[in-house]
Amino acid sequence: MKITALIMAGGRGERFWPRSRKSQPKQFLSLTEDGKTMIQLTVERILPLVAIEDIYIVTNREYRLLVCEQLPTLPPENILCEPFGRNTAPCIGLGAVSMSLKYEEAVMLVLPADHMIRYNSIFLSTLREACETAQMGENLVTIGITPDYPEVGYGYIKFHPEQAVNHAYIVERFVEKPSLELAKEYIAANEYLWNSGMFIWKLTTILNNIQKYMPDMYEGLIKIRDSIHTPEENDVLEREFKKFLPESIDYGIMEKAQNIYILPGSFGWDDVGSWLAVERIRKSNELGNVVSGNIITIDTKNCIIEGTRKLIAAVGMENMIVVDTDDATLICNKNSTGDIKKILENLKICNRNEYI
Amino acid sequence: MKITALIMAGGRGERFWPRSRKSQPKQFLSLTEDGKTMIQLTVERILPLVAIEDIYIVTNREYRLLVCEQLPTLPPENILCEPFGRNTAPCIGLGAVSMSLKYEEAVMLVLPADHMIRYNSIFLSTLREACETAQMGENLVTIGITPDYPEVGYGYIKFHPEQAVNHAYIVERFVEKPSLELAKEYIAANEYLWNSGMFIWKLTTILNNIQKYMPDMYEGLIKIRDSIHTPEENDVLEREFKKFLPESIDYGIMEKAQNIYILPGSFGWDDVGSWLAVERIRKSNELGNVVSGNIITIDTKNCIIEGTRKLIAAVGMENMIVVDTDDATLICNKNSTGDIKKILENLKICNRNEYI
Repeated sequence: MKITALIMAGGRGERFWPRSRKSQPKQFLSLTEDGKTMIQLTVERILPLVAIEDIYIVTNREYRLLVCEQLPTLPPENILCEPFGRNTAPCIGLGAVSMSLKYEEAVMLVLPADHMIRYNSIFLSTLREACETAQMGENLVTIGITPDYPEVGYGYIKFHPEQAVNHAYIVERFVEKPSLELAKEYIAANEYLWNSGMFIWKLTTILNNIQKYMPDMYEGLIKIRDSIHTPEENDVLEREFKKFLPESIDYGIMEKAQNIYILPGSFGWDDVGSWLAVERIRKSNELGNVVSGNIITIDTKNCIIEGTRKLIAAVGMENMIVVDTDDATLICNKNSTGDIKKILENLKICNRNEYI
Repeated sequence: MKITALIMAGGRGERFWPRSRKSQPKQFLSLTEDGKTMIQLTVERILPLVAIEDIYIVTNREYRLLVCEQLPTLPPENILCEPFGRNTAPCIGLGAVSMSLKYEEAVMLVLPADHMIRYNSIFLSTLREACETAQMGENLVTIGITPDYPEVGYGYIKFHPEQAVNHAYIVERFVEKPSLELAKEYIAANEYLWNSGMFIWKLTTILNNIQKYMPDMYEGLIKIRDSIHTPEENDVLEREFKKFLPESIDYGIMEKAQNIYILPGSFGWDDVGSWLAVERIRKSNELGNVVSGNIITIDTKNCIIEGTRKLIAAVGMENMIVVDTDDATLICNKNSTGDIKKILENLKICNRNEYI
C-alpha cells in the first residue's frame, strides 16, 4: 500500500529565540553540526519509506518560501498553507482531504517537522510496524516514546500491557503534562509512554473518524476539498478555516475514538523543546560545554554557547546558555529556559517587532 | 609657588577588555554616565589647582593622538612620550626633567590618569595640604587612602600615628599587596593606609632624590633633558630609556629616601581596577543591576551589563558581568575578573591581535 507523509511545520518555536524568529522558526533552523535544518532532516529521515512526491508539508502562508527553499525537490503543490494556526486537528484534516484527492487509499504518516531522532533505522522499522498495524482494520496508531525519566514537559499515554497486536498496544487513555509527582508514578507504573505527536493511519480511517467525532470540521474540510483547483480555493480555505475551533487531534479524535494503538519507540527521540536540547543533540567537550562559533572559555563548564563570527569570551561561567545572533544576544541560566518567552512578551509589549 | 601636574597615562588596562584594547586602554575610555573619559576627568578635577599649560601627560607614543583628541586645550608640547614602558620611576623622572626646563621651582603633583574620585572638593583640599607639606623642606609626600575593608589588591603604607606635621604623617614603610590575613591585620592596626600612587613634591626634591638613590637613571635623565629641542632629542630619549631598568618610584625612591610623608585621603577614591568598579561608580537599580545599552533583564540580579545598540537579553542571571562590543562579547563571573587576562594571553598565543 502507498505510504504518504504529512509533516506539520507551522510552529513558531519561540523557545529558540534569538535564533528562531517569527520569520524563521525552529523547524527551519539547523541545530546539528551537519548544517541541515530540522525540516530537511525530517524529510530525509523518511525517504526510505515515502517517496518525495508523497510527502506533504502543512505550514503557515508566510513560511511557504522557506519550505520551497529548504526542500527544493518537494513538488510545490505538496505545500499546504493554513491561513491561520488552529492546532493539530484542522492541520491534519487539511492534509487528509488534500491527499484524498490524489490517493484512493494510502497509509498516512503524521510527523512534526521539528523533532530529532538519533537511530533512524530503528525509527523506520517502528514506522513500518505502525503502517502494518494501521492497515489492519480501522486502527489509529501513535508512536509512544519509552521514557528515560519523569519528564513534566510531555503528555503521556497509558496503554494496556496485556493487549497487544504484534508490537502495538491498545491505548487506555491520553494524559496531559503531569506534575513531577505524577510523572514519577507514571514511570514507576510501566504502563505509560511519552506522547510523541506522531500518528499513523489510513486516509480513510482518519477521515471517517473526523466525520464521526468532529462533524462540523469535516463538513468544512469537504468544502475545502471540493474547492481545490477552483478559483474559489483560497476564499473557501480562509472562510472554513476561520470557523474551525483550535483543537488538538489528541483531544478531538484520539481520546474519543476506538481502535487506538500505540507502538513503543526507542530511537533516541527528542522534541527539541528548548536550548537545553542542544547538549543532547551535539557532543559536549570534557568540561560539559557545547560550543560553536568564535568562542574562548576560561574556567567555564556545562555551558551551551552558540556564536557566530563575533568573539565570545566566557569566564567562570557555569550552567549557562549563550546564543549570539547579529542583532541580539541571549544569556540565560539553564534553569530559566522557560522564561525566554518573557523576553518575547516584553518585546511585543514594547512593539519591538524587529527582534521577535 | 607654581603647582604643576604630571598625569601618568601609559597603562594598558587589560582588565577592562573587551572595551579596553591595546589601541585604547582604560584611561581613554568613559566608564561614567557623563561620557567623559578617565583622563579627561583627571585633568578637569585638578584645574582649580593647576593651569592647563602646567599639566603634563606621560604616555606611550601610540597614545599621543588619543591624548591630543581627548585634551584639545592641553599644549601639545606637554605630552611626553615614553619610547618603552619602564614602570613609574623613569616615567616620573622624564616628567621631572622635562618640567625642570620650564620651571625653576614648582611643586609637582603626580597622578594616575585612570582613578575615580567622588568628592572632588575634599580631594583638592587634600592636594593643597600636600603641596604645603611638600614645600616645607625636602619632603616627599604621598596620599594614602583610608581603607574601608581589607583589600588584597592594593599596596599599603604604614605611618607613625604619633609623628605628624599638620595632617601629614611620617611614613614608616611601604608594603606590597598583602594576603587577606595580613590585610585584616593592617586594617585592625589602624596604622596603614592604601597606597594610591599619588605623589606631591618639589621638582628639586624629586630630582635630588633621583640623583641620590637612582644615580644611573639620573645621568640618563640629564642627557635626555639636554637633548630636548635638539635634533637628537628622539634618539637620546630612546637610547637612554632603553638603559633604564623597569622600577617603581615606590621601590626606587620612596622606600629608601628620608622625609616621606603621607596624607590620609577620604575623597571616595577608586582605582577602577576591574569591571567590578563599575557598580561602585554608577548607580545600580533595585535588583542590584548596573545596565547600559539595549538590555532586557528577566529574573536577573547583581549583574553588570554594558551593551551597545545590540539587544542583550539576560534571563536568570546572577553575579555576572556582560560587556558587549562590536567584535567581542565578554561574559564573566564577578568572582573571576582576575581571569580576564587569561583571555588576552589566549588571544596573544593564537596571534589574534585584532582582539587585543
